[in-house]
Amino acid sequence: MAKKRVVIALGGNALQKNGEVTAEAQKKVAEKVGEIIAKLSNKYEIVLAHGNGPQVGNILIHEEQAASEKAPAMPLETAVAMSQGQIGYWLAQAIQNAFLKEEKNKKVATVVTQVEVDKNDPAFKNPTKPVGQFYSEKEAKVLSKEKGWAVKEDSGRGWRRVVPSPKPKSIIEKREILDLVKSGTIVIAAGGGGVPVYRTKILRQVKGIDAVIDKDFAAEKLAELIKADLFLSVTAVDFAYLNFGKPEQTALKNLTSKEAEYYSRQGFFKAGSMLPKIQAATEFAKKGKVGIICSLDNLEDALDLKSGTIITR
Amino acid sequence: MAKKRVVIALGGNALQKNGEVTAEAQKKVAEKVGEIIAKLSNKYEIVLAHGNGPQVGNILIHEEQAASEKAPAMPLETAVAMSQGQIGYWLAQAIQNAFLKEEKNKKVATVVTQVEVDKNDPAFKNPTKPVGQFYSEKEAKVLSKEKGWAVKEDSGRGWRRVVPSPKPKSIIEKREILDLVKSGTIVIAAGGGGVPVYRTKILRQVKGIDAVIDKDFAAEKLAELIKADLFLSVTAVDFAYLNFGKPEQTALKNLTSKEAEYYSRQGFFKAGSMLPKIQAATEFAKKGKVGIICSLDNLEDALDLKSGTIITR
Repeated sequence: MAKKRVVIALGGNALQKNGEVTAEAQKKVAEKVGEIIAKLSNKYEIVLAHGNGPQVGNILIHEEQAASEKAPAMPLETAVAMSQGQIGYWLAQAIQNAFLKEEKNKKVATVVTQVEVDKNDPAFKNPTKPVGQFYSEKEAKVLSKEKGWAVKEDSGRGWRRVVPSPKPKSIIEKREILDLVKSGTIVIAAGGGGVPVYRTKILRQVKGIDAVIDKDFAAEKLAELIKADLFLSVTAVDFAYLNFGKPEQTALKNLTSKEAEYYSRQGFFKAGSMLPKIQAATEFAKKGKVGIICSLDNLEDALDLKSGTIITR
Repeated sequence: MAKKRVVIALGGNALQKNGEVTAEAQKKVAEKVGEIIAKLSNKYEIVLAHGNGPQVGNILIHEEQAASEKAPAMPLETAVAMSQGQIGYWLAQAIQNAFLKEEKNKKVATVVTQVEVDKNDPAFKNPTKPVGQFYSEKEAKVLSKEKGWAVKEDSGRGWRRVVPSPKPKSIIEKREILDLVKSGTIVIAAGGGGVPVYRTKILRQVKGIDAVIDKDFAAEKLAELIKADLFLSVTAVDFAYLNFGKPEQTALKNLTSKEAEYYSRQGFFKAGSMLPKIQAATEFAKKGKVGIICSLDNLEDALDLKSGTIITR
């Protein structure tokens, strides 16, 4: 029987346990991810997507704070590519090492991935996603003028640049990723939601644009394009919950896409947290496939549809 | 007739014209590279390797200067992976856009690449390669104590960290890169000489190590492993020269590996500049293949063995 093809989207926070953010600490956490992915690859074709929130945040802080004429700051879109190299390297090495522990030597590759967005996406008229370091109001307004940044006050902590968060339309490297999957390689792709690019009207040229694409939406789009059977959004909890954190919280086990949409509309899921995961899994379910929310701990059972929040059409 | 398989190693300085180091300026230069590579792909299977000297230099400067407890500096090995994401993204996009201009839509992918070195390589006992920012002697000696860095005075310009430059032993992602090449994809790989890794004695685990691998040596090793027909080191000049820059300078056109080794021993080629290119091309020639030194301008003719310094066994 052919292996089922799965796309697993892992949160960028998943590599940072107990606030430990050194490369060494994050690699240590990646080891656990590597062991789980290596084990699952016996039964599944796997594409691993990952977030990059804290990692690209630190890259931007370094790039902005230490920028000079001789060593100018890289723009956000290039910083996303840098974070793909960084996290992809850690994850690929962790998976390779997990195989080597079992004296296996299977194939693993990180593909730098561009994700196409629509320049007319309404998100570009309303940038909402804070990125990079905090500034004083005065500094922020100077930067806004100098660089054309949108800036906003962020929860009483200071001013930050805000960027658009458009929806993914397509994955530029979808064929290359699929070729690798078919040749038996575990692929790490669409890191941080992908490097955001748009197409010009003339000749459909691909150009980078400063934005942040939600990694669950990007991973779901990739899952569609490579005809995956399952899409999993892996987070800190085993299930999505109704009334999360309240005494009456209820784990959601099996949902139809209609039910998931109803709960989403009713505001049961936190924006920027559980909501995009549910929305991505629901989108995938509506294509007649299965979308799942789970944690690293119940991932294996979730793939067998025995745990996690399982969303079907 | 099957296409010839070629590995092209491009200098990291090649993307920085007239000292312009912004992302925008480097992408602009990448466009020319993209057009050349896209054109050549009609006749050749291509793997493009690239240097990262100035780019990883800037990453390290930013990482070191703006490091804090909350946003610690990434180590050199991870910074190399970041530079692979950065430069690989620029080059892949440039090649894709060149195809789109011809209304073609061929496959291009950047693979984050780890390159294995020997922990017993003598280079680890004698770190020579300066990386990152300049420090005062006092600062450098404090950092040396705190972080275990080797530090050296650099040509009267200040003190810098120096790291080992070991020889590449193998390419961890060689099979994945070959799969992509065989499926018709132009692959960008081994950027910056690859992320330096070594294998532990127990279980052959792969671990990152702070070092810099020469990109010509890494690209040549990759060329061997994927059974390429030609290895090309692309630099600023059309040929390697005897007495370069002197009135009697002589372009070298066809060389046997013995001749190339003789001139190398006689000190005709500059260390850290033309010498490693000649050494890498000679190494490849000794395997019965063809190693070439050329520039972007005569690359196409060089592939036809009509220009450039052609080294054969």
